[in-house]
Amino acid sequence: MPPEVVSLAEKFALFSEHWSPKIVGEVNESYVKLVKLKGEFVWHHHPNEDEMFLVVKGRLLIETPGKDLLLDPGDFVVIPMKLEHRPVAKDEVEVVLFEPKSTLNTGNLENERTRTKLERL
Amino acid sequence: MPPEVVSLAEKFALFSEHWSPKIVGEVNESYVKLVKLKGEFVWHHHPNEDEMFLVVKGRLLIETPGKDLLLDPGDFVVIPMKLEHRPVAKDEVEVVLFEPKSTLNTGNLENERTRTKLERL
Repeated sequence: MPPEVVSLAEKFALFSEHWSPKIVGEVNESYVKLVKLKGEFVWHHHPNEDEMFLVVKGRLLIETPGKDLLLDPGDFVVIPMKLEHRPVAKDEVEVVLFEPKSTLNTGNLENERTRTKLERL
Repeated sequence: MPPEVVSLAEKFALFSEHWSPKIVGEVNESYVKLVKLKGEFVWHHHPNEDEMFLVVKGRLLIETPGKDLLLDPGDFVVIPMKLEHRPVAKDEVEVVLFEPKSTLNTGNLENERTRTKLERL
């Protein structure tokens, strides 16, 4: 199957729910996911996976124990494995995630925010 | 070391040469690289690595044997391993690459376009 060009804007337009990552691409052992965030998430960490956040729209705060990270559109950060973090979005934020296929959105926790069997757009 | 927020625009402003990827981040077994393209590259493939191109600025054509892929800002494509491809940029294009650390820019070829020991920005 030949590769398909994916428009981030077109894919973001396909959903409105928050905190529910969608798979839009696959690169080796990683997924490219899109997620819309609004409000506060839970503190968590990923035991074995680094996680990359690239902000496309809005302003994202990622709290870590030692430092608050503030991301505007066109900014990215890599949260290394094992580091506790909590994403906070005062207003809606659109984010591209790059992370291993094994990554669970709530990392070391399983709770009502956990999403498994992610939708593919 | 706490994670650092990286501005794509600030990093792109640090260099002007074409076809010479710079490393700006590390996520698990992959690098995040920035590259400026202008003109035609060589036909090549990556024997073992998928390669993701995300266009930030300008318009990128990626030729493949069966299909021409045209990417505008905010578009991405994943070129699967083993697929022959040739990036072509009529005017300057700014691209974010997401690929395994082992990936060589000219893939299966080593020639005057090959870049090893990539600079970190």
